[in-house]
Amino acid sequence: MRTAYIHGHFFTMDSEYRTMDRGMMVVERGAIVYIGDHAEELLAGADEIVDLAGKWVLPGLVNTHSHIVMTILRGVGDDMLLKPWLETRIWPMESRFTTEIAAASARLGILEMLKSGTTTFSDMFNPAGIDADAVMQAVAETGIRGAFSYTIFSMGTLREQQANLAGAERFARRYKTAADGRLTTMVAPHSPYACTPHALVESVRIAHENDLMLHIHVSETETEVSDIERRYGVRPVEHLRRLGLFGRPAVMAHGVVLNDEERQIMKRHDVRVAHNPISNLKLGSGIADVGRLLDAGIKVGIATDGVASNNNFDMFEEMRTAALLQKGTAKDAGRLPAPTVYAMATRMGAEAIGMSHTGSLERGKRADFITIDPYDKPHLQPVSRASSHLLYSVCGRDVCDVYIDGNVVVKNGQCLTMDEEKVMAEANRLLSRIGEPRHGAPAAGR
Amino acid sequence: MRTAYIHGHFFTMDSEYRTMDRGMMVVERGAIVYIGDHAEELLAGADEIVDLAGKWVLPGLVNTHSHIVMTILRGVGDDMLLKPWLETRIWPMESRFTTEIAAASARLGILEMLKSGTTTFSDMFNPAGIDADAVMQAVAETGIRGAFSYTIFSMGTLREQQANLAGAERFARRYKTAADGRLTTMVAPHSPYACTPHALVESVRIAHENDLMLHIHVSETETEVSDIERRYGVRPVEHLRRLGLFGRPAVMAHGVVLNDEERQIMKRHDVRVAHNPISNLKLGSGIADVGRLLDAGIKVGIATDGVASNNNFDMFEEMRTAALLQKGTAKDAGRLPAPTVYAMATRMGAEAIGMSHTGSLERGKRADFITIDPYDKPHLQPVSRASSHLLYSVCGRDVCDVYIDGNVVVKNGQCLTMDEEKVMAEANRLLSRIGEPRHGAPAAGR
Repeated sequence: MRTAYIHGHFFTMDSEYRTMDRGMMVVERGAIVYIGDHAEELLAGADEIVDLAGKWVLPGLVNTHSHIVMTILRGVGDDMLLKPWLETRIWPMESRFTTEIAAASARLGILEMLKSGTTTFSDMFNPAGIDADAVMQAVAETGIRGAFSYTIFSMGTLREQQANLAGAERFARRYKTAADGRLTTMVAPHSPYACTPHALVESVRIAHENDLMLHIHVSETETEVSDIERRYGVRPVEHLRRLGLFGRPAVMAHGVVLNDEERQIMKRHDVRVAHNPISNLKLGSGIADVGRLLDAGIKVGIATDGVASNNNFDMFEEMRTAALLQKGTAKDAGRLPAPTVYAMATRMGAEAIGMSHTGSLERGKRADFITIDPYDKPHLQPVSRASSHLLYSVCGRDVCDVYIDGNVVVKNGQCLTMDEEKVMAEANRLLSRIGEPRHGAPAAGR
Repeated sequence: MRTAYIHGHFFTMDSEYRTMDRGMMVVERGAIVYIGDHAEELLAGADEIVDLAGKWVLPGLVNTHSHIVMTILRGVGDDMLLKPWLETRIWPMESRFTTEIAAASARLGILEMLKSGTTTFSDMFNPAGIDADAVMQAVAETGIRGAFSYTIFSMGTLREQQANLAGAERFARRYKTAADGRLTTMVAPHSPYACTPHALVESVRIAHENDLMLHIHVSETETEVSDIERRYGVRPVEHLRRLGLFGRPAVMAHGVVLNDEERQIMKRHDVRVAHNPISNLKLGSGIADVGRLLDAGIKVGIATDGVASNNNFDMFEEMRTAALLQKGTAKDAGRLPAPTVYAMATRMGAEAIGMSHTGSLERGKRADFITIDPYDKPHLQPVSRASSHLLYSVCGRDVCDVYIDGNVVVKNGQCLTMDEEKVMAEANRLLSRIGEPRHGAPAAGR
């Protein structure tokens, strides 16, 4: 099957940010075999020709850190700091999760991701009380591309901790290559504060033995950094380095509280960062200095985190927030210019999570792409300034079509791989099972 | 004409943030005559009954500072600081504006505002080279509510400056009450840096003589503050106070760089602030300390500024950014909780611009309201947490219906007062007249 996509306004997001105003892309067996100017001679060999005239075409977005199983917790515990939010809201509710709730929540999250233009994601899920196989089955059916991480926590009895580690190892192996290669795994110790050194070392072993990446929350808040310092005598990055974490390619979610020395360590070991600007603001954690991370030569991807601290999966909004924050805090409007942010949300993000076979429209890459029709949207006028609007004006709801591996998964805004109405109804129905936290509406304040 | 709106989930945004799950609102001659629980007996006297079952109903949003005539400049000069952006991009292009361009730009801006849920706005426009009457005619036809400000600049010859002041005075008078009371005016000296003390004093005189508010850009950047200090020996707020600006109710756009003493002066004189979080970030100006402004008892509204520095009119995104920034910079997730932000974007914002007859769903207020249908939107699930989603998940594109003075201006996402396709085509067609600035795409950077 060979398909030619013609007449679209292509934004390749390759390293030269090439664009073709009325370009052409040819896809065969899910891979891009040609992208460039219109070439009439290539049409002859095509089984199908799709006319994308008037549409903007760009790589599917890459969300480098999420928690889709928590999607049902959207709107729980707003306006709270990370620690009490986790301890009094999120973890108690998660402890009542069942497989049915986890799968429904995952479907809802992926439905939102796909419809808003995310084609690849890296997710960390809490396996407590749920059958991870059933959740993976649900994820595979959606058609999305992603890396899944079964979270390793050092909680409960020693036996429970061992079971958790064994579960993580089994999971990492079983789904290392799944769903026609769309799904893979990472090894995910939750964080230096929720994992013992033993669990961290074991995580490294599992990653080594299975040739997998590590995925971990690090240096999200000042409190976390000082807690680790008090407990281990060193800051989190050095603590992890000593335990051998950086002997494997690793992606660190957050990285809000880092100093120059830590950035040097991270650069030396090619540690990547998943930047979660909205979640970091919402939980009062702060603002990661993305400019300095990039200056140090560290790969940075953009991420939403879970929707309970965001509260949506809109990667366009996340890109915009990432760009705006660096400009505003550095008081330098040229900081994090549009091309850099596009790269972070596409090509660089894909590289950060070890998925460089996606993230840009280039020959040889998987055909993961999205389209936007600007002509009926006042906020995308004048249309000639598309390269600005893609960062500063578009929102996830503007996405028209979404393709993964050359397969259309969203068409004219409607998801083809899921029954949208059913997915939403199911999430609402299951809500009563986990119990709404009892707290009144927050009072007005400053 | 008496219309009963029934079964909606009403968010009144009154001072007690009352909500009614299946409530009722009765509107007569454009005013709310009843809002509360369902009252079957009130249906008898209704000429029309509108069933809003399943929909969220809230007051139309109030955008306290915009420049709709600049809408066609969306995406011009991204990633630039305020001063060079104004001087090398915006002002040169504005100097080529014609009445036709200004009116087309205003229509496009208002189309976007209405469709994204803004029913009231306060706008400042550059009158150079355009027939303000024609622009006002275009604005009146859209059905929006707003206050218009003809900008006073101290530029050009003395004669030109006098003509500008005379034009502003004539305009302020002529449209003080226009379009059935939907439109009014303010007196708008551009800023302490673009206006001479004479122009500022004249602005105050015009405001006094016509009983109007003042609208002015103040303390947007540190450079501006130090420039004014160097020129006048005092900071902008004190400079304006000495010239009598605060003898009239005034709304100050931006207020990014303020100290405690200035906040005290502002509080004493009931000076209001239009907070433009996204524009302030994008232009590298910084982050206004909204928490401290509110602590000082100052009324703060939310605003988008013009789309050339935003780059959209989505007030939901603006609300969310306002909330997130205060939490992240104060490292306090409880800072600017949801109810406060709702008030800023509705009731408090309306009060800030002297329009307290709108901005909340209360008896006696104008029937300016919007609806959102959450049931087909994955990012608004679970629906039971509406009071969180309205701030943290909704985007402007989610707005379903928009009413102003009880008249429906947007129905199911389609604007009824304008020919959408024509408005967009017109803006694109006229673009060539002002000339695209010649500059390549920005290079990637940090």
